[in-house]
Amino acid sequence: MIKVVILGAGNVATHFFKAFKKAENVEVIQVYNRSEASLEVFKSNTQTTSDLAKLKKADIFLVCVKDDAIEALISKLSHLDGIVAHSSGSVPLSTSAKRNAVFYPLQTFSKQTEVNFKEIPICIETSVAKDLPVLKQLAHSISEKVFEISSEQRKKLHLAAVFACNFSNYMYSIAEDLCNQNEVPFEVLSALIKETAQKATLHSPKSVQTGPAKRNDQATIKQHLAQLNNADYKEIYKLLTQSIIQQDGKKL
Amino acid sequence: MIKVVILGAGNVATHFFKAFKKAENVEVIQVYNRSEASLEVFKSNTQTTSDLAKLKKADIFLVCVKDDAIEALISKLSHLDGIVAHSSGSVPLSTSAKRNAVFYPLQTFSKQTEVNFKEIPICIETSVAKDLPVLKQLAHSISEKVFEISSEQRKKLHLAAVFACNFSNYMYSIAEDLCNQNEVPFEVLSALIKETAQKATLHSPKSVQTGPAKRNDQATIKQHLAQLNNADYKEIYKLLTQSIIQQDGKKL
Repeated sequence: MIKVVILGAGNVATHFFKAFKKAENVEVIQVYNRSEASLEVFKSNTQTTSDLAKLKKADIFLVCVKDDAIEALISKLSHLDGIVAHSSGSVPLSTSAKRNAVFYPLQTFSKQTEVNFKEIPICIETSVAKDLPVLKQLAHSISEKVFEISSEQRKKLHLAAVFACNFSNYMYSIAEDLCNQNEVPFEVLSALIKETAQKATLHSPKSVQTGPAKRNDQATIKQHLAQLNNADYKEIYKLLTQSIIQQDGKKL
Repeated sequence: MIKVVILGAGNVATHFFKAFKKAENVEVIQVYNRSEASLEVFKSNTQTTSDLAKLKKADIFLVCVKDDAIEALISKLSHLDGIVAHSSGSVPLSTSAKRNAVFYPLQTFSKQTEVNFKEIPICIETSVAKDLPVLKQLAHSISEKVFEISSEQRKKLHLAAVFACNFSNYMYSIAEDLCNQNEVPFEVLSALIKETAQKATLHSPKSVQTGPAKRNDQATIKQHLAQLNNADYKEIYKLLTQSIIQQDGKKL
């Protein structure tokens, strides 16, 4: 049985708590939070405390507080014998605890939505080699996708996620705007958007690239540019088209 | 019973044929194709011909040939009494037949993949008002998503799809490249990519935009730009970030 103490009571903490509750061989023996009020929801299911001095003995202390509060909290946990793992994508592995680790679920969480953890990749990292097996075991207890990722890799992953998620969403957003301008329901594009995402995750996105830029179809590209009257969108269309054409040129 | 003749024997024709076969109140009474060889697969299920003079009498003649062959084929069908509908996203409504129409499924088809037509939007258009009901009925027989879209709107939709699909796929492709460069499995991003697409189709993508640009988090933006050593990717990161920040500025 892996004994876990969760520190924090926000979205990530709540989702972890629910997932571990269903997991075999894992027990959340305590939830800590600075403010007592947010602990209410946990009280019927486990012990709670707002006093760091009263943390129980556990195998893993899982820090689920805001990025800018992580290091300050971990620095107060240097006396603990268990693994101290934070759950952030952008904060490096700490050096303040005895046994520092990262246990980072790569997904956006909102309080309302139920989460299927099985599909969510857990990125783990530790500076203490002997801690790796238990971190892996904990990750596998809730997810089928477990990856060992270094702090340096995690930084790059965060950058890659900006392209794959934030920027792709902005592309949807421009499409939505163009639909609205022309009284076409954006919903018409839903199936295609989901299919494109699905395809990209099954194959290499580079290998399934389609469209006028990919075909270097200059007639259509010109037509499209003439249709765009938003200066930003025009620039974006030009730059992405150029970049796709050039990439293909390099391949030859 | 709506009687349909399909003209063409490629991907779109084949997928339509299979879908109509399962539909109630629709019968594909004939498949035409210029070359006899491609008709083989249809022969056990319906009548076939490679001779335009032998087309049967039908309610709808569904033209599923390549974009640049559509107009030439329709011009040979001007004697027909039925509706002549092409299935292309980028070709305008013809004026060559007596009763011209468009019956356009907005999805990419490949021969191997089974298609769930229910989810695929069918965009219909006709110059003959009295033909609209039967076109709608035919569309609803295979899909739950039927939209009346004019040729002008279809042009804009095609442009919007370039952003929503071709360009979003290029964002995935850049993310994949960044992952490869840093020996992070691109698979780590799969769940997030699918969730982002899902979210955008459930809500307005503009309303669920996240990331450093959305937060105007200049420290992270600077860090990311410093990490990018591909000139194209750097330009794209800058332009999209700027555009997201500006859009938000306009809202204030």
